[in-house]
Amino acid sequence: MIQVGIFGATGYTGVELVKLLNRHTKARLVFAHSESNAGARLSDVLPCPYDTPLIKADDAPLGAVDVVFSCLPHAASAELCKRVLDAGKRVVDLSADFRLRDPAVYEQWYKHTHPHPELLAEAVYGLTEVYRSDIADARIVGNPGCYPTSILLGLLPLLELDALADPVIIADSKSGVSGAGRKPQLSTSFVEVNESLAPYSIGHIHRHVSEIEQELNAAHRSVSSMDKNGASDDRSLSILFSPHLLPISRGMLSMLYVRLTPQAVQADWHSLYTRRYEGEPFVRVLPKGQISTIAHASNTNLAVISVHPVLGMPDRLQIVSSIDNLVKGASGQALQNMNVMFGIDECEGLR
Amino acid sequence: MIQVGIFGATGYTGVELVKLLNRHTKARLVFAHSESNAGARLSDVLPCPYDTPLIKADDAPLGAVDVVFSCLPHAASAELCKRVLDAGKRVVDLSADFRLRDPAVYEQWYKHTHPHPELLAEAVYGLTEVYRSDIADARIVGNPGCYPTSILLGLLPLLELDALADPVIIADSKSGVSGAGRKPQLSTSFVEVNESLAPYSIGHIHRHVSEIEQELNAAHRSVSSMDKNGASDDRSLSILFSPHLLPISRGMLSMLYVRLTPQAVQADWHSLYTRRYEGEPFVRVLPKGQISTIAHASNTNLAVISVHPVLGMPDRLQIVSSIDNLVKGASGQALQNMNVMFGIDECEGLR
Amino acid sequence: MIQVGIFGATGYTGVELVKLLNRHTKARLVFAHSESNAGARLSDVLPCPYDTPLIKADDAPLGAVDVVFSCLPHAASAELCKRVLDAGKRVVDLSADFRLRDPAVYEQWYKHTHPHPELLAEAVYGLTEVYRSDIADARIVGNPGCYPTSILLGLLPLLELDALADPVIIADSKSGVSGAGRKPQLSTSFVEVNESLAPYSIGHIHRHVSEIEQELNAAHRSVSSMDKNGASDDRSLSILFSPHLLPISRGMLSMLYVRLTPQAVQADWHSLYTRRYEGEPFVRVLPKGQISTIAHASNTNLAVISVHPVLGMPDRLQIVSSIDNLVKGASGQALQNMNVMFGIDECEGLR
Amino acid sequence: MIQVGIFGATGYTGVELVKLLNRHTKARLVFAHSESNAGARLSDVLPCPYDTPLIKADDAPLGAVDVVFSCLPHAASAELCKRVLDAGKRVVDLSADFRLRDPAVYEQWYKHTHPHPELLAEAVYGLTEVYRSDIADARIVGNPGCYPTSILLGLLPLLELDALADPVIIADSKSGVSGAGRKPQLSTSFVEVNESLAPYSIGHIHRHVSEIEQELNAAHRSVSSMDKNGASDDRSLSILFSPHLLPISRGMLSMLYVRLTPQAVQADWHSLYTRRYEGEPFVRVLPKGQISTIAHASNTNLAVISVHPVLGMPDRLQIVSSIDNLVKGASGQALQNMNVMFGIDECEGLR
Repeated sequence: MIQVGIFGATGYTGVELVKLLNRHTKARLVFAHSESNAGARLSDVLPCPYDTPLIKADDAPLGAVDVVFSCLPHAASAELCKRVLDAGKRVVDLSADFRLRDPAVYEQWYKHTHPHPELLAEAVYGLTEVYRSDIADARIVGNPGCYPTSILLGLLPLLELDALADPVIIADSKSGVSGAGRKPQLSTSFVEVNESLAPYSIGHIHRHVSEIEQELNAAHRSVSSMDKNGASDDRSLSILFSPHLLPISRGMLSMLYVRLTPQAVQADWHSLYTRRYEGEPFVRVLPKGQISTIAHASNTNLAVISVHPVLGMPDRLQIVSSIDNLVKGASGQALQNMNVMFGIDECEGLR
Repeated sequence: MIQVGIFGATGYTGVELVKLLNRHTKARLVFAHSESNAGARLSDVLPCPYDTPLIKADDAPLGAVDVVFSCLPHAASAELCKRVLDAGKRVVDLSADFRLRDPAVYEQWYKHTHPHPELLAEAVYGLTEVYRSDIADARIVGNPGCYPTSILLGLLPLLELDALADPVIIADSKSGVSGAGRKPQLSTSFVEVNESLAPYSIGHIHRHVSEIEQELNAAHRSVSSMDKNGASDDRSLSILFSPHLLPISRGMLSMLYVRLTPQAVQADWHSLYTRRYEGEPFVRVLPKGQISTIAHASNTNLAVISVHPVLGMPDRLQIVSSIDNLVKGASGQALQNMNVMFGIDECEGLR
Repeated sequence: MIQVGIFGATGYTGVELVKLLNRHTKARLVFAHSESNAGARLSDVLPCPYDTPLIKADDAPLGAVDVVFSCLPHAASAELCKRVLDAGKRVVDLSADFRLRDPAVYEQWYKHTHPHPELLAEAVYGLTEVYRSDIADARIVGNPGCYPTSILLGLLPLLELDALADPVIIADSKSGVSGAGRKPQLSTSFVEVNESLAPYSIGHIHRHVSEIEQELNAAHRSVSSMDKNGASDDRSLSILFSPHLLPISRGMLSMLYVRLTPQAVQADWHSLYTRRYEGEPFVRVLPKGQISTIAHASNTNLAVISVHPVLGMPDRLQIVSSIDNLVKGASGQALQNMNVMFGIDECEGLR
Repeated sequence: MIQVGIFGATGYTGVELVKLLNRHTKARLVFAHSESNAGARLSDVLPCPYDTPLIKADDAPLGAVDVVFSCLPHAASAELCKRVLDAGKRVVDLSADFRLRDPAVYEQWYKHTHPHPELLAEAVYGLTEVYRSDIADARIVGNPGCYPTSILLGLLPLLELDALADPVIIADSKSGVSGAGRKPQLSTSFVEVNESLAPYSIGHIHRHVSEIEQELNAAHRSVSSMDKNGASDDRSLSILFSPHLLPISRGMLSMLYVRLTPQAVQADWHSLYTRRYEGEPFVRVLPKGQISTIAHASNTNLAVISVHPVLGMPDRLQIVSSIDNLVKGASGQALQNMNVMFGIDECEGLR
């Protein structure tokens, strides 16, 4: 039995973890933390059936757990993750604190100094489908952001086959409101969100750009250096990323627009996607003719991908990639990573 | 041209008023107040096309207006309404401050002393269909709450014909979220409200109970003293009122359950309702066989009422009463009252 | 391993069953039927990850299963259930065909002759919390309707303690749209439902009235004959039931209004409810001060109940009872009943 | 007084027209047609306050009107429009029948022969901001589709200044469900749409592509032949258009991605957009720093546009263009065109 703790259990990702752990037959929730609600039970704070008592961070029995999930905001998260590591335990961090490898990039996008830059080198980026073997051995997993998960899984086969003719990829992404967290704010109030659709942080300025571009180029470098002796090494991929707030609670869809190299135009991309994700338990490539929607992925740990040629524009390709932002985009992938870290069935608790 | 000012223009009822005034051919918005957003334009604060500048209360040109609508919270509202009256102008107050006649009742339900109890005697309750002639002459109109509007209009013909056998009337009411105001709070956050339905303040404790029972008994007393020499004077009507928060932006529906006196059982209540509201421009009694829904009233100043006998239970009657909480339940009725106060076409701006 | 078949797998309750069975460790889906989609896979018909092939009823391998769930419409359902019984297997029927004991009552409310009235005598009403031991031995379980489930669980303690002073109970119920089935119709089209709330079949005419009143009186008779030597036997309980269509996909909430007998007024009903449902895995009575909402029960097999005295009206009581109409109101309860029928952990697949 | 008839009054665009006409002081509804609901009143068919009687097409008093709006499906619409013209009256057609100039293009995209190709030459495309003077004199106005309206208004300044370096423009558009019409179908049923987002007809195959590309190239040709002596005449603009179905009733937002020519990179596009639409009553360019959302345009006849440079990618520009699909995207623009046709205030009925 894997003994588990959660920091920040009363946010949407925290509660989703409690729910998933409740179905996990090989893991047990040992503690659930909430600084502001300590003393209450989880079911007092949210409409849910879990009577888990909430405790302060200083009371967390770190000695009694094998792994801690941190669902805290960035900066605060790194501080508590450090405590877990100091207690000799492992951590899956759902904040942005261990996603970026370069502390300077972190500082540029998150506007403060990283509290523990010395840990970045060993942190593993938790996109399971890419870093599975590193995750197995990791002490720290930086669980990916929701937008990066949907976008990177949608692009991976193209990146790994070095198929892009244009270094700018367009990602038009739409997210449910739970992605913005549970803290009351005007922009996520019911009346403001309902019956609308609101783009935000457009124009290449959303923080997830840094994480997406890091991983786009990591995937691209590895293949281009191998295949082409560095010919395209100097070309850096960029994401023109437009997030939108959707009037739904959970779910996320990215519409991806790419231009293919002349060689790539010849390929059957539906087949290549299907082959790339064969054997991946949580990536589903839809049959030709079907289009991925948010409903395909809601309340599952799946990324559901569809691949679409463009009539009369042979060098263009559209990919649709849907996930549940709270599951594959957060708590589900975190649990998937925990399963990998402890060498158990990757699908445990996630079926 | 009626010159109009608005206190509290950046809440949902304030903006609704601006929108309605924009279509009014005989009224002109002179000032729009927002203490916290003074200096900005309305369109900077909300997604709307109105570039109206926002000013502080101290800068409001009270001398230049004929009437002021106050969309402020209770207590704060009475203070500013007093200023308007002192400037010799008239006021339609959308808060609760001028709805209750008895300052002791106000204090009991609103938990603070009324700032200007001396004004309560002259304030007129702004349910147009009941108090039209008093409103015409009023300096102060206490615009009704949204729940009271939907419930009272649904019961009025029964009350006026003294038809109730049970002094407890059940009102199961459901409201859109805009009724809770625009201030961010967890209970009106998108994810908390969406895909749910939440009863609140049930068990005869919601503040609107005071206002509803005041008016139920006012209507009942007038008829019972007239018709029956006081026989039922001592019986006080109560409302067992259950408000629910619906996952919609605007609209409200009350399902009303009453028991009829033996005489009342004989009557054709659909006809009596139709007759009572004949000539009322903003009350629509649906044909037999149709059921009122929120969609019937949305974005209109109508109360849409349907009347339903109960199969096999002749002494029971169900009435459905729908309004748009921001229009007939607030700003629309306020404008209707202004039209009455200034002797112009009651429908102006409200078609 | 329990071998399971499903008739009518492409409706909302059918798919929900497939999803729940997918998590069940002691049951296996052997066949999924859809007459109109036979030949396709479930994932071709709905956005879901289940590639289950769909077959015609005539191809259903009834010999290979232990139990069949029927998610077909009434009348059609009884016909196929008969085949299952003839094959020597057991059936949980989610239609209305085996809920009513009296074929005459069935004919009166469903407007056609029951195809197999001879089976009604042995069918067990599948409200697990009442008929658990009968269900264990049943060949046919008539799985309760969603409205009856929410209403009966909300009233059971009052009925069993003979606490009602008024034979008319008011149930103001609100349901998500999935309860109306998956067949396209104007009344469940997005634009018609969205941003509205629509009462329907009000006035004591909804078909579920028959089922609710059958069970209200069954519960009431058993206790009154026992306790009071038949004194109240002749008083028949009725439900004044008002269903509403809510703009949400799943979930149902019933607000129940009762009048208490003088003795019952003295009792602590919160305690009595808590005690009644102690040990029931799928009924949750909320702590005092909390109000049940649809979010409490969504995506769970729970009925979540809260009990509310009425301030100043000691003989009145309000009960709120929430369920997920597709889970406890249909497929979850059906699976719970299957677990009971086969003597395994009642919570299997439903956690 | 302009005398008006409506063909197809019971769809969403038909009812929206009735509502707008109700506020119009210089137009009067003479007849409302519905073949399938003839004999009923509009309020019997939809939850609305309009008791307008519905008549069959053969009973339409064409001699008594000045203009007819056709809200019928394509093909059926052209047939009835012909009757109106034959009666010597003018027509605004909201179907696709008079939008395309080339009958071969119509046949290619709509898969049937145009019933009256001889009328296409004189029909005027009803994008008011482009064809205002032609509309004033037109007998037939082909009212634009909703997607084309949002996209073309978002691109017009770029097209007119010949600023595009890439002949492929990406339009990622999202629409409310009312755009799909009122006929019940599974894809627009509440449960299918709610809590999801569904791309459809992606890959350059949606019918509106034909209309958008016709007008993109019309705008582009006029400027390029003038300015550049035909140098770019041979370059044809294309739209890579991805429509999505949003879980809202009304509203539409297009996110437009373009690449600028080297000269265009230097320009201040916010200023150029502001200048282009100065004086246009129904196009609103938001101040710098604000982003257009669907809420900005809902229930108005406005196109609300915001212009966004891309950080670190100087040759890219993003434009957001929001409209209400039923108002500026259909009935509002139709009424605006009628106002132009009859030489009255263009804003009448649309404020």
